[in-house]
Amino acid sequence: MIIVIQCADRVGLVAAISGLLAQKELNIISMHEHVDNTANLFFMRLEVDKTIGAEELEENLREILPADALIKINPVPEKKIIVLVTKEYHCLADILVRNYFKTLGASVQCVIGNHDTLQDICRRFDVPFYHLPATADKNLYEQSLVNTIKKYEYDYLVLAKFMRILSHDFVSHFPMQIINIHHSFLPAFAGASPYRQAYERGVKLIGATAHYVTDELDEGPIIAQQIIPANHSLNVQDMVKAGKEIETAVLAKALKLVFDDRVFVYKNKTVVLE
Amino acid sequence: MIIVIQCADRVGLVAAISGLLAQKELNIISMHEHVDNTANLFFMRLEVDKTIGAEELEENLREILPADALIKINPVPEKKIIVLVTKEYHCLADILVRNYFKTLGASVQCVIGNHDTLQDICRRFDVPFYHLPATADKNLYEQSLVNTIKKYEYDYLVLAKFMRILSHDFVSHFPMQIINIHHSFLPAFAGASPYRQAYERGVKLIGATAHYVTDELDEGPIIAQQIIPANHSLNVQDMVKAGKEIETAVLAKALKLVFDDRVFVYKNKTVVLE
Amino acid sequence: MIIVIQCADRVGLVAAISGLLAQKELNIISMHEHVDNTANLFFMRLEVDKTIGAEELEENLREILPADALIKINPVPEKKIIVLVTKEYHCLADILVRNYFKTLGASVQCVIGNHDTLQDICRRFDVPFYHLPATADKNLYEQSLVNTIKKYEYDYLVLAKFMRILSHDFVSHFPMQIINIHHSFLPAFAGASPYRQAYERGVKLIGATAHYVTDELDEGPIIAQQIIPANHSLNVQDMVKAGKEIETAVLAKALKLVFDDRVFVYKNKTVVLE
Amino acid sequence: MIIVIQCADRVGLVAAISGLLAQKELNIISMHEHVDNTANLFFMRLEVDKTIGAEELEENLREILPADALIKINPVPEKKIIVLVTKEYHCLADILVRNYFKTLGASVQCVIGNHDTLQDICRRFDVPFYHLPATADKNLYEQSLVNTIKKYEYDYLVLAKFMRILSHDFVSHFPMQIINIHHSFLPAFAGASPYRQAYERGVKLIGATAHYVTDELDEGPIIAQQIIPANHSLNVQDMVKAGKEIETAVLAKALKLVFDDRVFVYKNKTVVLE
Repeated sequence: MIIVIQCADRVGLVAAISGLLAQKELNIISMHEHVDNTANLFFMRLEVDKTIGAEELEENLREILPADALIKINPVPEKKIIVLVTKEYHCLADILVRNYFKTLGASVQCVIGNHDTLQDICRRFDVPFYHLPATADKNLYEQSLVNTIKKYEYDYLVLAKFMRILSHDFVSHFPMQIINIHHSFLPAFAGASPYRQAYERGVKLIGATAHYVTDELDEGPIIAQQIIPANHSLNVQDMVKAGKEIETAVLAKALKLVFDDRVFVYKNKTVVLE
Repeated sequence: MIIVIQCADRVGLVAAISGLLAQKELNIISMHEHVDNTANLFFMRLEVDKTIGAEELEENLREILPADALIKINPVPEKKIIVLVTKEYHCLADILVRNYFKTLGASVQCVIGNHDTLQDICRRFDVPFYHLPATADKNLYEQSLVNTIKKYEYDYLVLAKFMRILSHDFVSHFPMQIINIHHSFLPAFAGASPYRQAYERGVKLIGATAHYVTDELDEGPIIAQQIIPANHSLNVQDMVKAGKEIETAVLAKALKLVFDDRVFVYKNKTVVLE
Repeated sequence: MIIVIQCADRVGLVAAISGLLAQKELNIISMHEHVDNTANLFFMRLEVDKTIGAEELEENLREILPADALIKINPVPEKKIIVLVTKEYHCLADILVRNYFKTLGASVQCVIGNHDTLQDICRRFDVPFYHLPATADKNLYEQSLVNTIKKYEYDYLVLAKFMRILSHDFVSHFPMQIINIHHSFLPAFAGASPYRQAYERGVKLIGATAHYVTDELDEGPIIAQQIIPANHSLNVQDMVKAGKEIETAVLAKALKLVFDDRVFVYKNKTVVLE
Repeated sequence: MIIVIQCADRVGLVAAISGLLAQKELNIISMHEHVDNTANLFFMRLEVDKTIGAEELEENLREILPADALIKINPVPEKKIIVLVTKEYHCLADILVRNYFKTLGASVQCVIGNHDTLQDICRRFDVPFYHLPATADKNLYEQSLVNTIKKYEYDYLVLAKFMRILSHDFVSHFPMQIINIHHSFLPAFAGASPYRQAYERGVKLIGATAHYVTDELDEGPIIAQQIIPANHSLNVQDMVKAGKEIETAVLAKALKLVFDDRVFVYKNKTVVLE
């Protein structure tokens, strides 16, 4: 059973929590903890060796924790997700394969595409695919997204190369529930055609960043980042291809961390207790 | 103040320790903890916000911990080290520079070389250098090493590319106090001229491993490992050069971890609480 | 059009080759070249901007190259492959996905498994799967493999976590045509349960090596190697999982290099002209 | 002897160059070549086995190359450099150590600091140090820099954590001769206190970029880039320290490439022929 706690820090917190667990004869298998001194925040992820009633345990924890504590107790850690895509297959296919072999740590409820390019791969894995083309009226389009999403239970929306910008309104419906992946460079290249800009600057690294989606485009809390080397022998197309490899790897890593309840969000950042 | 604990695991250990610290109004700034379930061992590194009497605190901890607990309380974390070298400068120079600028986390007491190649660089940094050439009689030679070492206080001996094999006897005088760096490849190349063998096999990675020295040559507990890419355009000499870069970086990393009291040893492995 | 040349080195080779191409008004888009001075060998990979008759060009090249020159001219670079698997899906699924989206640089003719675990995923991608269980008589078993393989055209056999050791005889039928992926550690852990050994030694890196299969088990020419960091928080199962991620990535990288005609083999090593 | 050529591309260039070398009985030890098709530019780095008269060879090359060809022939590859610093020691110390052990590939003529913090380390290595404090009048200050620089022969100015912004005028005196190192993040954090911003965003990588200095601050052609992992357990100071490690490594790598005549510059990018 996994127990996740985020609250204001104070002396004796760890003692109180671990004392309670000891009382209940729960043995701690792994415990990760972090304190942000500046923000005076305490983060903890515990794995204990038995599964007991979550309700009673949460109640007991509330008694010893600050009033505003966030507590999550997961007897069954599997999450439910909905994936949004456009035309690029690399991230979606990786998710579908892991979903099929039950190593994703989540189950894919459905896939929604603004193009139908990826319909067939979903069909091959018996995953429902909804083709919802973007319409001139953004509100209308996002309403159709929401309608489809609401048909399912879900913990997270995964933007697996979904190339539409979502409105403030849409995002506010899913606070810290939307995960996105995008290319990253040193330095960042703002504006259109980032790969062309990166190529023209002769970058020596191509990276990817997985992050929660907030109102500010591509500026939400970072979950995972990685890079691969690049050099002059790559043309723009080669760089795009290399970017896809790293995007796939970073999104997979980020999803594993999130589905495993290892990622805490506060302010505009994350604490990842690996 | 840093508190380091290693002992048999049991339910309630974290509660007891953190309860004690709370009682003493020590605020935990950072806490890292690991349990090896198979070995039933508990490892913890704590940083608290105040410095109090180590003796009393240790006594209090002993009352709540298993009898065989290892406890280290470091009000002043700076360690003392002695460096052993042969002819290659890269690791030593890095250590001397950090020592000079007080960013090593330890102070270099002296350097001992079986050649005098590195005498001048030590002189430039006002660090005592002893030229103790290896002699036919290994016992005699190691006795001269021990005699020189015993002139100083030290916490660790650092083999910074020291190319002599130390005897079982010598090593047993310094249990888990000797740190070594050596090249590493995938796969390992046993026998003479590992770089030539690696070159002939066309390896695509060159690595380095920093480890504690035990009786079994290069088989002691691993502290840190890293690699850099290699390819066919490197000849044997280029590979040796590249190896030096990664050896320098890995030894620096390992020393930082050790001097920071982040490395625990048990069986033939380490737990590194970063 | 891609032109690949491997031959004894001599003064004037590049001049002769590039002179010939200039004569034929073939513009060189990219040229990679390597000379192994010790072995006196010359390696070259050229991409030219037009496709002309391969036969005549090869004849002309033979006139200016040493008698023993290997020459490959690929107007159509797509290769044909047969994949051998056991039960683990990670490498196969990656290959099937790239095959389906036509980004593998090769087309998968069929998959042969000594277990039927991966039959369904092949069916979903409309790729023929043959379940050939290993039999007590190794000769007989390998004969059944050969019989199935020979039904297809193929350039390479890919061992995508195929857990049977192939005989000298079998391997000799497919010289430098069999590509394998396996875990790698620093140091290497020989014998059974390498992940358990690595765990017990507390390794800080997990790697993978893709190589051509020769008579000596896991000792053939290395094509690609990569690593990911590991630490004490991973148990044996976690390390196995992490190993799968890096195996998938390294095999994908190696296949891309081979299918792109970038890998040359000589002695027991490769030159990779990226 | 190293031969470096950059010019407009055309059919037959490699044939002509290698034909000339063959004629002169110069054996090519290594040859790296790149063509930028978009820019129609040709880049080549050759190492030949003998040293002959550079003047005559250059003349002969000019006869067969486009009129605007850049040609460098280096019988003695050692460069001369001047290092500019402020207070941070990490990059300078690395340069001084390599300079002292003659593995830098260049010789340090002098060091200029706008603070005197690093005077003593220079003295210890017998390298002249000039303390030129920045003055209110930037012109005057830069004039004093130029006056000191002009006392020496030099090929490159290395900004080893030199924290002053140089004027357009100053930079234009040293076209593609000034090399700088600075931190890099994904994404880039513009404005003051980039490490604090990176910390506040919770970045998972810290990088460094070595580049030529042009008019546009930190926007010149990139020579080398690398990253190291970061996480929430690092506070701002830890991130700064980690940044120094990677800055040292990347600047060392970049200088090696430049001093080895492997870096070509055109437009705002580099070709690095490793």
